[in-house]
Amino acid sequence: MARLTTKAAGVFVIAVTPFHPDCRIDMESCDRMVDFYLEVGATGLTVLGMMGEAPKLTVDESRDVVARILSRVNGRVPVVVGVSAPGFAQIDALTRMVMDLGAAAVMVAPPGTLRTDDQIYTYYTQIAELLGDVPFVLQDFPLATGVQISPKVIARIMNDMPTCVCLKHEDWPGLEKISFLRKEGVMNNRISILCGNGGLFLPEEMARGADGAMTGFAYPEMMASVVAHHHSGQMERGRDIFDAYLPLARFEQQPGMGLAIRKYTLAKRGIIAHDALRKPGAALSEASRAEVDRLIVRQERRLAELG
Amino acid sequence: MARLTTKAAGVFVIAVTPFHPDCRIDMESCDRMVDFYLEVGATGLTVLGMMGEAPKLTVDESRDVVARILSRVNGRVPVVVGVSAPGFAQIDALTRMVMDLGAAAVMVAPPGTLRTDDQIYTYYTQIAELLGDVPFVLQDFPLATGVQISPKVIARIMNDMPTCVCLKHEDWPGLEKISFLRKEGVMNNRISILCGNGGLFLPEEMARGADGAMTGFAYPEMMASVVAHHHSGQMERGRDIFDAYLPLARFEQQPGMGLAIRKYTLAKRGIIAHDALRKPGAALSEASRAEVDRLIVRQERRLAELG
Amino acid sequence: MARLTTKAAGVFVIAVTPFHPDCRIDMESCDRMVDFYLEVGATGLTVLGMMGEAPKLTVDESRDVVARILSRVNGRVPVVVGVSAPGFAQIDALTRMVMDLGAAAVMVAPPGTLRTDDQIYTYYTQIAELLGDVPFVLQDFPLATGVQISPKVIARIMNDMPTCVCLKHEDWPGLEKISFLRKEGVMNNRISILCGNGGLFLPEEMARGADGAMTGFAYPEMMASVVAHHHSGQMERGRDIFDAYLPLARFEQQPGMGLAIRKYTLAKRGIIAHDALRKPGAALSEASRAEVDRLIVRQERRLAELG
Amino acid sequence: MARLTTKAAGVFVIAVTPFHPDCRIDMESCDRMVDFYLEVGATGLTVLGMMGEAPKLTVDESRDVVARILSRVNGRVPVVVGVSAPGFAQIDALTRMVMDLGAAAVMVAPPGTLRTDDQIYTYYTQIAELLGDVPFVLQDFPLATGVQISPKVIARIMNDMPTCVCLKHEDWPGLEKISFLRKEGVMNNRISILCGNGGLFLPEEMARGADGAMTGFAYPEMMASVVAHHHSGQMERGRDIFDAYLPLARFEQQPGMGLAIRKYTLAKRGIIAHDALRKPGAALSEASRAEVDRLIVRQERRLAELG
Repeated sequence: MARLTTKAAGVFVIAVTPFHPDCRIDMESCDRMVDFYLEVGATGLTVLGMMGEAPKLTVDESRDVVARILSRVNGRVPVVVGVSAPGFAQIDALTRMVMDLGAAAVMVAPPGTLRTDDQIYTYYTQIAELLGDVPFVLQDFPLATGVQISPKVIARIMNDMPTCVCLKHEDWPGLEKISFLRKEGVMNNRISILCGNGGLFLPEEMARGADGAMTGFAYPEMMASVVAHHHSGQMERGRDIFDAYLPLARFEQQPGMGLAIRKYTLAKRGIIAHDALRKPGAALSEASRAEVDRLIVRQERRLAELG
Repeated sequence: MARLTTKAAGVFVIAVTPFHPDCRIDMESCDRMVDFYLEVGATGLTVLGMMGEAPKLTVDESRDVVARILSRVNGRVPVVVGVSAPGFAQIDALTRMVMDLGAAAVMVAPPGTLRTDDQIYTYYTQIAELLGDVPFVLQDFPLATGVQISPKVIARIMNDMPTCVCLKHEDWPGLEKISFLRKEGVMNNRISILCGNGGLFLPEEMARGADGAMTGFAYPEMMASVVAHHHSGQMERGRDIFDAYLPLARFEQQPGMGLAIRKYTLAKRGIIAHDALRKPGAALSEASRAEVDRLIVRQERRLAELG
Repeated sequence: MARLTTKAAGVFVIAVTPFHPDCRIDMESCDRMVDFYLEVGATGLTVLGMMGEAPKLTVDESRDVVARILSRVNGRVPVVVGVSAPGFAQIDALTRMVMDLGAAAVMVAPPGTLRTDDQIYTYYTQIAELLGDVPFVLQDFPLATGVQISPKVIARIMNDMPTCVCLKHEDWPGLEKISFLRKEGVMNNRISILCGNGGLFLPEEMARGADGAMTGFAYPEMMASVVAHHHSGQMERGRDIFDAYLPLARFEQQPGMGLAIRKYTLAKRGIIAHDALRKPGAALSEASRAEVDRLIVRQERRLAELG
Repeated sequence: MARLTTKAAGVFVIAVTPFHPDCRIDMESCDRMVDFYLEVGATGLTVLGMMGEAPKLTVDESRDVVARILSRVNGRVPVVVGVSAPGFAQIDALTRMVMDLGAAAVMVAPPGTLRTDDQIYTYYTQIAELLGDVPFVLQDFPLATGVQISPKVIARIMNDMPTCVCLKHEDWPGLEKISFLRKEGVMNNRISILCGNGGLFLPEEMARGADGAMTGFAYPEMMASVVAHHHSGQMERGRDIFDAYLPLARFEQQPGMGLAIRKYTLAKRGIIAHDALRKPGAALSEASRAEVDRLIVRQERRLAELG
């Protein structure tokens, strides 16, 4: 499988982990989900993302899920695997396992204890050394990690470590950070910038110079459409479509409930069989389900209006 | 001036503090802003809110701003004043000052050190004792304060302290919290619930039983419209209007930049004379200004379509 | 192997993980360390503690270390294993592995996202259910976890879940918490309270009703001596000895450097072969080593004076 | 009054704010406290420190306390006043007030929102500009502020801003930070370093190159003695005395209870009339009082032994 490069672009959908109602992993749903993501325009997948249920899997389960997804993807798009962990031995073991299975790169978020510029830079120096020639994605997600990485430090890390090929940008929304990294003279090479935050700022992020999205909204077609319209120079149309999805995208971004909403929506769309979450996980109330239903009805109506 | 009661409803706009370019307070803009807020349907005002620039004012300036706003309001709507401070002596002094000037109530957020249920309950017991017969609003804003107040603790505080008449609900979005507080038997009396978060979840919040909004989006007419359509049973129409404003509302909710965006928009609308922020404050880049401009153009077009 | 009960008392030394200079696990040092701890009076051992290097081990390494230590202990004292993890699947897998190997109990700290009383109580309800009949230690360590558990909530958890047999008390120092839990009528049964914080408050903790220590100071004989003198009613003598060790104990409690100091001291004492730490880990400067050396000289002199 | 310079050295005692039992400020105790501090060797005083009860005073009360203390000091030693506040207008107003009253410098801690090196450097650039020619102390206290300032950033701030004359070093204990700042070539000029943390690491801090202490232990004579013995080259004796005070100093450093213990001790010593704390403040239990009493008896006995 080809490895991830600085050319990574488009929509890397962050995959959920489907479970059966008894919370065993639902491998059939994994397959269906992979097919669906690729059909609606995913140019890559990301698995074992930090905000999902990766930490709820055992090491054996993680391997099984990654293997199944890679097998189903079968080389059609690159697959990035999140390997953030408190210690280097764990990161190393997980990286070797998933690269052997055929992953295209790994993704590493900074541990929550890092604060100063030097601490952050040193951490990624050690990570790059540990990973050797394995390409990696720097996940910059202050709301979740509590670590703020200044634009200068990102530039320094990515300039000094050529295996750091992509920034997963999630600095809510950190539009100025994208602009800084795209300024003449800041980077030695043009690195890939893929944006998170559930796609909630994607039109603005693309305009600032992002290469696409890496996030997990239950309608990845929205992200694919915004990226496509951006490239075809039809951003008014792209924004119309974005705006049609925004009420639901906003609803899905509720902290603590987002994943339950996403799984409920994916199950409702028939992509995964069940919306089960593993403990400790927030259950979705009847009222929340009804709200999602209503938002989907309105979303479909608005999309129909737009033609 | 009448004091705030559990009947508080509608839209309490959180006022910005307008400055001259040299950062002196702009009292003429204060007047214009008050008039504007009342014209577009504010049923109340809130000043010296925690997330604004209240902490950047000296005590003398705080008094002058509150006095000017109260004078311009002239009893037409109730004015709530934020008095959160690390110590009780400061809260007491500020409360006495603003109640003497004619405020309708004060608003108190929990200090960031509180954690356990008992710590939070005890804090509000002491606050209620300190404030005597002054009505107060409990500000529940975990994203900003770091303090999570469980629904049960809110119910206990508000049941036990009759001067706590209103919950400023900002638990992002905490829809289940509203549902819990409106459940039969939870509260001795129906208290007022006004919601924050820039109005980003207002349709769902009203459906769950909120009485309105207390927040500061630069188009308060959106909030007024959602509340009105909710009460007239025309929520599909209310949601259409909400959706038209959502792209800008979302953009204004960016942490760290929200206030700059709001002031820029208010200045662009001619409501305040300048978009100046006091240090330390984030300046709005040219690119961000252009994004706001574009969002406003699209918003006006969509509203025109809706008729 | 007998399982841990509410009678757990004395000194449960938290074991370090010895490494070779190339950072492989040093199994010979593991054996020597176990023998040493038991010789100086340990009544139990705790391995894979949260603040140590457990998160730097792979799952396979964790199993190997636990197996080696259990084999060397050979049933002489109970061994508690830390199993805190973000998800239940991981906790479950690790628990089954170590209980099969012969552990006496597991230890669970709350995940850092918990805030309200109900969240904490619910989490431990789910943990107790997950663990079945495996006894567990509740680790209460707010400085590290960011979670504050009120005394009432601890009482509620331990009263309702009979398999929660022991509190690892590390609420810096939280003396009032011990007093509360020992008050007549608070607990249905007398549970075990073992204290952390490097033993820095052990005389006061014993006086308040603790049963001993569960912590990792490089001179566990200090803890054994304080506990013994407490029980023999010779606390002035016990405090004299405590005071002699205090300057070094204080030095070892420096956040971020404590483990490096502890390993340096243990290596200097000949208990482990090397003071190597795995990355990311703080190296001990020459100056710090000299400070430890000086503190040990003074400590020995003072102990000699005391006879 | 002479202003603070980079030559500041010795013991700057952080003064408590004495209250009457009804929580009015006790000005007579202020006077007695000032006299006491100077008698036992204070070379300076610091008032309105962040961890004390400064935030519980109104602006008027702050002025009255500072005025009273300055009047009693009457130019005998320099007085530093803490002016940390969320906004520049407040810092400016407080600074002008206390400098007019005769303060020697102000002290500024970073607001808790700062994270990256550039954010911290920019903040202090703006502070230096705001303060003009008023000398200031940079308070580096990560445990309380949550802000970690790397040694390089401290050097950069202090090299670039000549009015930043002194570092209040409280990076628990951050001995390596002192060593770094004293390394040849790091600083343009030798700045003053005064250490906090209740004096708990003072012998090591002096050995690393600190100029003294700025902290508030109830026995400032300990700090004065350590500093004096350091300068006379009698550090074994200095450490003996330090060790005699350490059990109580350790007890006083308990988070959340430290100030109550300090006031209780000062009242017991007859220096302030009452140990009253303003709300919200932790009361000292009977058991804690007894523990302090016992520690003082033992401390006196040990000091007598040392002669």
